[in-house]
Amino acid sequence: MRLATIRTAAGTRAVRVDATGATETGDADLRALLSRPDWAEHAAAAAGPSHAVEGLDYAPLVPAPEKIICVGLNYRDHVLEMGNELPEYPTVFAKYAPALVGAYDEIELPTVSEQVDYEAELAVVIGRPVRHADEAEAAAAIAGYTILNDVSVRDYQNRTKQFLQGKTFEHSTPLGPVLVTPDELPEGGWAISSTLDGEVMQDSTTDQLVFGAVDLVVYLSAILTLNPGDVIATGTPGGVGHARRPPRYLTDGAELVTAIAGLGECRNVCRLAK
Amino acid sequence: MRLATIRTAAGTRAVRVDATGATETGDADLRALLSRPDWAEHAAAAAGPSHAVEGLDYAPLVPAPEKIICVGLNYRDHVLEMGNELPEYPTVFAKYAPALVGAYDEIELPTVSEQVDYEAELAVVIGRPVRHADEAEAAAAIAGYTILNDVSVRDYQNRTKQFLQGKTFEHSTPLGPVLVTPDELPEGGWAISSTLDGEVMQDSTTDQLVFGAVDLVVYLSAILTLNPGDVIATGTPGGVGHARRPPRYLTDGAELVTAIAGLGECRNVCRLAK
Repeated sequence: MRLATIRTAAGTRAVRVDATGATETGDADLRALLSRPDWAEHAAAAAGPSHAVEGLDYAPLVPAPEKIICVGLNYRDHVLEMGNELPEYPTVFAKYAPALVGAYDEIELPTVSEQVDYEAELAVVIGRPVRHADEAEAAAAIAGYTILNDVSVRDYQNRTKQFLQGKTFEHSTPLGPVLVTPDELPEGGWAISSTLDGEVMQDSTTDQLVFGAVDLVVYLSAILTLNPGDVIATGTPGGVGHARRPPRYLTDGAELVTAIAGLGECRNVCRLAK
Repeated sequence: MRLATIRTAAGTRAVRVDATGATETGDADLRALLSRPDWAEHAAAAAGPSHAVEGLDYAPLVPAPEKIICVGLNYRDHVLEMGNELPEYPTVFAKYAPALVGAYDEIELPTVSEQVDYEAELAVVIGRPVRHADEAEAAAAIAGYTILNDVSVRDYQNRTKQFLQGKTFEHSTPLGPVLVTPDELPEGGWAISSTLDGEVMQDSTTDQLVFGAVDLVVYLSAILTLNPGDVIATGTPGGVGHARRPPRYLTDGAELVTAIAGLGECRNVCRLAK
């Protein structure tokens, strides 16, 4: 099943997306939908107003998650190519909801920086409250997967040792377009890429993750309860612009495509803030 | 004016607290109250059901803020005594809402750590949306001040370079008891302390802040919009348990009192999670 949050004239709506259209579930957004214990059955049976898939106006997949949890240094090939050892624990930092944009929205480039970079990431969306999960409980708590680009303002990120301020600029972070439930996805690694103005910049597969989706739910749920609609961005592979020589950053008018096989793509034009 | 969020049999309620009692404003909590553009007039005029101040059951002052933004390394005396230079930029990290507890609730000590530490902090609560603020706009966006103890699980905090995972354990962080509006507070430094089982552990004044409340609102609002109910924890002075020799941590049954002159105190018993 594929689920999304779309913008309508009456506000955002959760929808089930299939070949025949996008059907409203009766919930204001995906978080509200996933907060129903019976969300899967409810969404599968939904028969609300329907919209043509072509031209849907996607909101951030979860417009206001309780938590956006980001993981760093989590691609094996990238860690090793940088000469680092594989980490014992996940590196975890945050992003706030106003950072999010929809899958086809503009990415806002702040006027205070010229070092805005891309980071293609697989994101996990939580579908039920989970605390102190074992592996089976963690797997059952995953509603599905989507795409996030952890757009990073490198000079702010590196102003201090804590990444947060470079990771949470307003309207910087595409999330979507859809949540795909695990039953619709193949086992194993999914191709993940980012493409900037037609040039492939990142190209890896998710089987390079050091800590996979289930590992992360187990780890994080030992710290606090994960709740429906929470988003875990699992980290990015090599190829980011800041590590290139010369470095390559997002510029006004550039088009950034973030794709994961089976999940679709985000396609975002960058715009310098006014 | 003093405002709070209390628990009642019917759920949480925003209240105005004064000598005669705690009067409901008709809002579910302080964030909902502050989201009204006319919150100050609305709260001042509120005449809803009233509760005796004695025995109020305080919820976290803002039970579910959109953002809890924490600042590190921000007390001049502490930075200098550690032999460090004063920072050019604030160090900023996050905490998620499920970390919060009320001013007199128990602090939950996780079973996975024996290094849980206290950090008394002045917290700012935002009262109107603000972006790209100058100093006057930043000052006007501050609804008031309260107390937060940024309880920190040091071994998790130091597992990686990013603090988040040690800062956001569930039910770890007292916030409250009340918001005090700026007009009720004197200019200048306010005494701030933490006391553990009757022993004063931290004792400083808020005029030691490197980046004060207005500075932080200016700085952070250049990154993203601050919204009503957002909480900014401004950092902690010297005297934390992890830096003591031998170190001193929170233990089952210990009582932690976090006090700021003019704002009252949080008084929390620590309990090992079951």
